[in-house]
Amino acid sequence: MQIILLSGGSGKRLWPLSNNARSKQFLPLLQSPDGNVESMVQRVVRQIGESRLSGTITIATNSAQHDIIINQLGDNVDTVTEPERRDTFPAIALASGYLSMAKGCSADEVVVIMPCDPYTETEYFDVIADMVAAVENDAADLVLMGITPTYPSTKFGYVVPMSEDSGKDILRVKRFTEKPDVQRAEELLAQNAFWNGGVFAFRLGYMVNILEKYISAASFEELRSRYGELPKISFDYEVAEKAESVAVLPFNGKWKDLGTWNSLTEELSSNAIGNVVIGENAPNTHVVNELGMPVFCNGVSDVVVAASPDGILVCGKEYSENIKNYVDNLSPRPMYEERRWGSYRVLDTTTYNDGYMSLTKVLQLKSGRYISYQLHNHREEMWTIVDGEGVVVIDGAIRNVTRGDVVAIKKGQKHAIKALTDLQIVEVQMGDSLVEEDILRFDWEW
Amino acid sequence: MQIILLSGGSGKRLWPLSNNARSKQFLPLLQSPDGNVESMVQRVVRQIGESRLSGTITIATNSAQHDIIINQLGDNVDTVTEPERRDTFPAIALASGYLSMAKGCSADEVVVIMPCDPYTETEYFDVIADMVAAVENDAADLVLMGITPTYPSTKFGYVVPMSEDSGKDILRVKRFTEKPDVQRAEELLAQNAFWNGGVFAFRLGYMVNILEKYISAASFEELRSRYGELPKISFDYEVAEKAESVAVLPFNGKWKDLGTWNSLTEELSSNAIGNVVIGENAPNTHVVNELGMPVFCNGVSDVVVAASPDGILVCGKEYSENIKNYVDNLSPRPMYEERRWGSYRVLDTTTYNDGYMSLTKVLQLKSGRYISYQLHNHREEMWTIVDGEGVVVIDGAIRNVTRGDVVAIKKGQKHAIKALTDLQIVEVQMGDSLVEEDILRFDWEW
Repeated sequence: MQIILLSGGSGKRLWPLSNNARSKQFLPLLQSPDGNVESMVQRVVRQIGESRLSGTITIATNSAQHDIIINQLGDNVDTVTEPERRDTFPAIALASGYLSMAKGCSADEVVVIMPCDPYTETEYFDVIADMVAAVENDAADLVLMGITPTYPSTKFGYVVPMSEDSGKDILRVKRFTEKPDVQRAEELLAQNAFWNGGVFAFRLGYMVNILEKYISAASFEELRSRYGELPKISFDYEVAEKAESVAVLPFNGKWKDLGTWNSLTEELSSNAIGNVVIGENAPNTHVVNELGMPVFCNGVSDVVVAASPDGILVCGKEYSENIKNYVDNLSPRPMYEERRWGSYRVLDTTTYNDGYMSLTKVLQLKSGRYISYQLHNHREEMWTIVDGEGVVVIDGAIRNVTRGDVVAIKKGQKHAIKALTDLQIVEVQMGDSLVEEDILRFDWEW
Repeated sequence: MQIILLSGGSGKRLWPLSNNARSKQFLPLLQSPDGNVESMVQRVVRQIGESRLSGTITIATNSAQHDIIINQLGDNVDTVTEPERRDTFPAIALASGYLSMAKGCSADEVVVIMPCDPYTETEYFDVIADMVAAVENDAADLVLMGITPTYPSTKFGYVVPMSEDSGKDILRVKRFTEKPDVQRAEELLAQNAFWNGGVFAFRLGYMVNILEKYISAASFEELRSRYGELPKISFDYEVAEKAESVAVLPFNGKWKDLGTWNSLTEELSSNAIGNVVIGENAPNTHVVNELGMPVFCNGVSDVVVAASPDGILVCGKEYSENIKNYVDNLSPRPMYEERRWGSYRVLDTTTYNDGYMSLTKVLQLKSGRYISYQLHNHREEMWTIVDGEGVVVIDGAIRNVTRGDVVAIKKGQKHAIKALTDLQIVEVQMGDSLVEEDILRFDWEW
């Protein structure tokens, strides 16, 4: 059995903690059983491991998230990276092709598709195990999870079961309805409809057949290179709504989308995360501070405060669902990113009168990791090693570096660094254009 | 005629913008007539210049504020720096000794003492001019300003005039009452008492006589070196309450102490200062942001948000008078300081497992200014020049620096830098102790 975890999304609904490089599922804000914090994707992967599900996990994602997935879940996570962002049908088709062609899974093997960001408990995974069994027992070609609605939401798609199946463990699906208006949602609730939870189970061959209507590839590499030929359409439209044999298994346990500050703060590990002091007169207030400087908050209620290198949010919780339009253009670039080798934080950026720019970062490399051999055409970089030990390569010349050493990297100079211990570096970039995309990568054998 | 502006205070009531190096009178938050912003001390000096007062200004201050005064008011401001912090009597006595002994002012010259942080308008200075005239006409030895009270405040000292002088322009003073309780304050209001505004006028000889009861110095240098012999006592107790001939001139115009966020925000130049977006649902909310990153605020009311390198405050205005206890220990050191040569901002500090520390700053030097020739025993410093041109001295060796240059300064190395144009430097400090006090200064002839 195979599990495909869908990790996509970008968006700014959890600004300033989420940015184009760090979607909501990567925010390390939830309480983990060992007393530490974990992100939503770390939580889901942990919960799968603790559940009755015995499948292998493959994470279907995009190139912007690849590094943070490796950083949060380790090198041995299997990932399928889409060459460009399209929609859920092409993403699931690509991952299915990967399982079939690259991993050699059989057409009979059951595949479960699930999102990586629902906030749920054990019962959720029990229902998924039941869905797998339903596919194995040929209850339907496609089996999906139906969330028992708690109110007539207009944010979700609905799944309407056959009325004669009411009360059964497995219900045949009569039809799907996309996000309705409130009146229509109330009618759907009267018909015992479910929210579509985005969890699907099918046999691999079922999906591969649908994929082959668009691309008949000889290898996964070919499929990936022809990814742009797959239609930009959701899995719901392209597969679920067209399927002839669909069943739904109800789930009525805890299930939340922690996609806004209002919903997320209900599940935070603490009211005060980071260097924070909350005064005595601040009921139902949550403060998340990823900056070094302290935050003091008092005399407000029902407020969320969030501070990161991207910015500072102070928002009444009831208004927190509508921050996107305000903040969409506030941060011109991500100021914090997790990378395969660790993470960086931008401390400061300045543009001078003549257009020249400087940008100061702290880089944290994990022991044993390295930054790829690369050059920049528009900037020079000064590295001051402030902690740890490493090896630097400049235009092929190797030297060891430690605290107090400075490495000057001119425009066009190839450079790389490997951390021999955990390494902290202050990097000053200077040039006429300071963007992450100004990079040419080369091979280097460490 | 001489004006002594008292500039003291430290405290954290306007945290995080005020710190031990930047008291409230130096915050550049008020609207100036030319459309820019100005600090309270800049405003008072400007107002004196625009008033009928024709005196020379001497600022009585402490060493922690000396540099920021030069930075805000220019090199040609006359200052008297107390060797240690004591109280208002010794500070005024020292400044009076300076006028008498160092500047050679005559004993007959009228001196006005005034605080540097009242938020007032032109009429305030008109009353001071009348006070000067009253001293010149020998109305009393000591003439002070009485603020017409607007409520029975327990925060101010009161001046009770002779009841038979009621309605006169100049009233003889019957007695003083220090901060009373509310009931006592109401009684004082019934007696037509005034708030003591801390503005005093007298002939220089009057104060020099009182000074000489404690120290009979042959020179100002001697007086300053014996400063510790002066009692730690306020001018009110030591001089005003003991004076035999005291008069008060009433002032009933605009007069505010902008010493808390609640009072300060009423006079800010804008609701949003700095990189700030305020949403549509944030009535009576003020945001002051001195950081580079953006602040977005919405869905709160009657709130002040202030962000600086020292920290981030989010506070309901009615609670803003009581932040001191919460924030007193939040910032271990000032993270922003104005210096004689410009200013610095701390971007980041890290302490590693072995106690070693690093600290990253941005230094901004004004064209023509220089950082004194100095060495540090506990830290090395790496300077990356990110903008401008300058001259660096390292152990006597001179070199020119410009964008992209790196200057490595080892422990014990003497170093200095002069800005040939406005200069911006990223400084990385590393060592086992990173405090401003780790400094030995030397002479260097530029």
